[in-house]
Amino acid sequence: MSMTMAEKILAKASGKDKVEAGEIVMANIDVAMVHDITGPLTVERFKEIAENVWDPEKIVVVFDHQVPAESIESAENHIIMREFVKEQGIKHFYDVGEGICHQVLPEKGHIVPGEVVVGADSHTCTHGALGAFSTGIGSTDMAMVFSEGKLWFKVPETLRFEINGSLDKYVTAKDVILKIIGEVGVDGATYKACEFSGEVMKNMSISERMVLCNMAIEMGGKTGLVEPDEKTLNYIKKRTTKKFEIFKTDVDSPSLETMEINVENLEPQVACPHNVDNVKPVSEVEGVEIDQIFLGSCTNGRLKDLRDAAKIIKGHEIADNVRMLVIPASREIYKRALNEGLIKIFLEAGAVVCNPCCGPCLGGHIGVLGPNEVCLSTSNRNFKGRQGSTKAKIYLSSAVVAAASAITGKITDPRSLER
Amino acid sequence: MSMTMAEKILAKASGKDKVEAGEIVMANIDVAMVHDITGPLTVERFKEIAENVWDPEKIVVVFDHQVPAESIESAENHIIMREFVKEQGIKHFYDVGEGICHQVLPEKGHIVPGEVVVGADSHTCTHGALGAFSTGIGSTDMAMVFSEGKLWFKVPETLRFEINGSLDKYVTAKDVILKIIGEVGVDGATYKACEFSGEVMKNMSISERMVLCNMAIEMGGKTGLVEPDEKTLNYIKKRTTKKFEIFKTDVDSPSLETMEINVENLEPQVACPHNVDNVKPVSEVEGVEIDQIFLGSCTNGRLKDLRDAAKIIKGHEIADNVRMLVIPASREIYKRALNEGLIKIFLEAGAVVCNPCCGPCLGGHIGVLGPNEVCLSTSNRNFKGRQGSTKAKIYLSSAVVAAASAITGKITDPRSLER
Repeated sequence: MSMTMAEKILAKASGKDKVEAGEIVMANIDVAMVHDITGPLTVERFKEIAENVWDPEKIVVVFDHQVPAESIESAENHIIMREFVKEQGIKHFYDVGEGICHQVLPEKGHIVPGEVVVGADSHTCTHGALGAFSTGIGSTDMAMVFSEGKLWFKVPETLRFEINGSLDKYVTAKDVILKIIGEVGVDGATYKACEFSGEVMKNMSISERMVLCNMAIEMGGKTGLVEPDEKTLNYIKKRTTKKFEIFKTDVDSPSLETMEINVENLEPQVACPHNVDNVKPVSEVEGVEIDQIFLGSCTNGRLKDLRDAAKIIKGHEIADNVRMLVIPASREIYKRALNEGLIKIFLEAGAVVCNPCCGPCLGGHIGVLGPNEVCLSTSNRNFKGRQGSTKAKIYLSSAVVAAASAITGKITDPRSLER
Repeated sequence: MSMTMAEKILAKASGKDKVEAGEIVMANIDVAMVHDITGPLTVERFKEIAENVWDPEKIVVVFDHQVPAESIESAENHIIMREFVKEQGIKHFYDVGEGICHQVLPEKGHIVPGEVVVGADSHTCTHGALGAFSTGIGSTDMAMVFSEGKLWFKVPETLRFEINGSLDKYVTAKDVILKIIGEVGVDGATYKACEFSGEVMKNMSISERMVLCNMAIEMGGKTGLVEPDEKTLNYIKKRTTKKFEIFKTDVDSPSLETMEINVENLEPQVACPHNVDNVKPVSEVEGVEIDQIFLGSCTNGRLKDLRDAAKIIKGHEIADNVRMLVIPASREIYKRALNEGLIKIFLEAGAVVCNPCCGPCLGGHIGVLGPNEVCLSTSNRNFKGRQGSTKAKIYLSSAVVAAASAITGKITDPRSLER
């Protein structure tokens, strides 16, 4: 019987030949991730039901949300997790300063195609860029996973975005996913496996594919997915010797719905306050004055984003009225950006370069917004109060738009720099 | 009549030919500094008594304590200060990311010899390294300064430390001042002008002199002072064209007391919990296990400190049980450290490099300590609860001892690395 990628992965993980969308399965978990905020809650629940984790090799703990600790409470959370890691013999632990979980996991070889990955963080869907079924779960569910190594799933239907056309200069993966979310809406893909395909995806690097998968959750998706190809294999073979299996969607799968997206002549896109689907072409919001620019996050804190931004900023100064925070998504990215001279460009332009972490994305520290402040952010959420005050406004864009706007101090169409 | 440096500066500032220790004078203020925490309190009081600041050219505002904002409250403080700066036409404003006030002020040419400098921060005594009378005051006093441009002072007596001998390899300015504070005690120089002189001071760079002056307050001093010399002039002429006058202490001044300090064969020193004068040679505390190392602050976040540390750390890895935070004291230092390859050394060793700011020194963000954690810090205070939990322990040392300890994960005598 024809199946989608998502169905095939869940069938294998639950020891079945076939599964159908809507069916409930109990799937074995290949990778389970928690971070410094969801970890302590998981541990608390876990201790109520078990003594030892099912497999200390399959758990990954990453400190990324509030690192280094911004309060005694965070420091206590870190202590709880360090003790748990030690006590349980958890093999893969990334303490303060290694980077954001959704960058560290693929970068360090924890993600391969065909596996089931769960993370106690909503943007765990990012890892679908490598062809894994990867999704965010709550801390209570995670406690169950830590104990049993398995979790129930309702097999999702698949919504496949067939993305064709070619991207103009200054138009990026972020603009494509913002365009899609603007079209389908924040609940337009609820509980669907969002598969991204078409010639545009084929041409994208793994980092760019991660941008789309990362934001699948912003339209309600259960996971993002991209079929593995040569680029996937190249990315993985440098990082791990884990065995894996590649699954692809049969085009005649009963639960497959396809949506065509044409990105020819697509403008850079901006999601306006206070919803991710309030998306407009940059030309319609040009001139909005901003107080803070955040270049970073699990959406756009990767090397390509820093390169894109540095190219635009080089030789310019950040506008007086704006502070620009540059937060590489991982130590690896920071080091590479340093070696390529990008960090120097940012520092000389007047940007503030911070340690790898989630930064102000969730309003937890390093750049919290005050009342009436306006932020242009390369992250994934612009909900009211997300980055601090409920009276602040957050616009979401690509690193390219963020960089162009850093120079002028207001939302700027990067294409206008050439006019 | 013979006078000390402190007396001569205060005499000039109060329009008198001579003043004597113990006398109350009303002195004109040359530079008044507030930061992001003391600034809003100053503004609140200022608005009760005046409309316009006495001289917008003489006020310097630096954001350094909680930058980028770690909470909505901090963000609100920043907004208050940005608005005040704008409204009052204050010329010298350093927003998020420029560095620590006590580094930014001298670095940007705001400090020259012979002036009276007040800052709403206790370590304002740092600037005496350039021969200014510089002291910390409260926000209420600062409101008066903002309004009137003058402030009353009781003229201090002077305690001159005549520091002779030569410093061994691995022994630094920090070890000298810790040794002194250990000898005289935390109240051993209460309300004295602490003058540092002798051959050791002559050989020290301006940055090193700042280390001693910075910690004058830790023995109760009203200010730290070093007589200007060729090095002072070289430092200043690159940074400002401000006019200035040089004052030196007459050795027969009635209010001058001198203490001889011999640093020949001085060991690296460590201040143990929970007082700055609980000072021991490193050999007596070797082996104490540590959780966090903080290389930074207005005491030891300068280029020489980063160089000293990088030299030791190069080619090594930070011990597994320790997290090391490296926080350059200013953007300028960060840029120079980057150009010299120091940042790369820290990143490759596994240290966390953060944006220029006060960092965890005052427990406000970026590295707050949890219960029972132990920190080895290059900053200036180890009071109970200073960096977070009252159950944490803080040891103070030089950058050299901090770097050696980073490699082993416990307090380490740098000389043992050669054994």
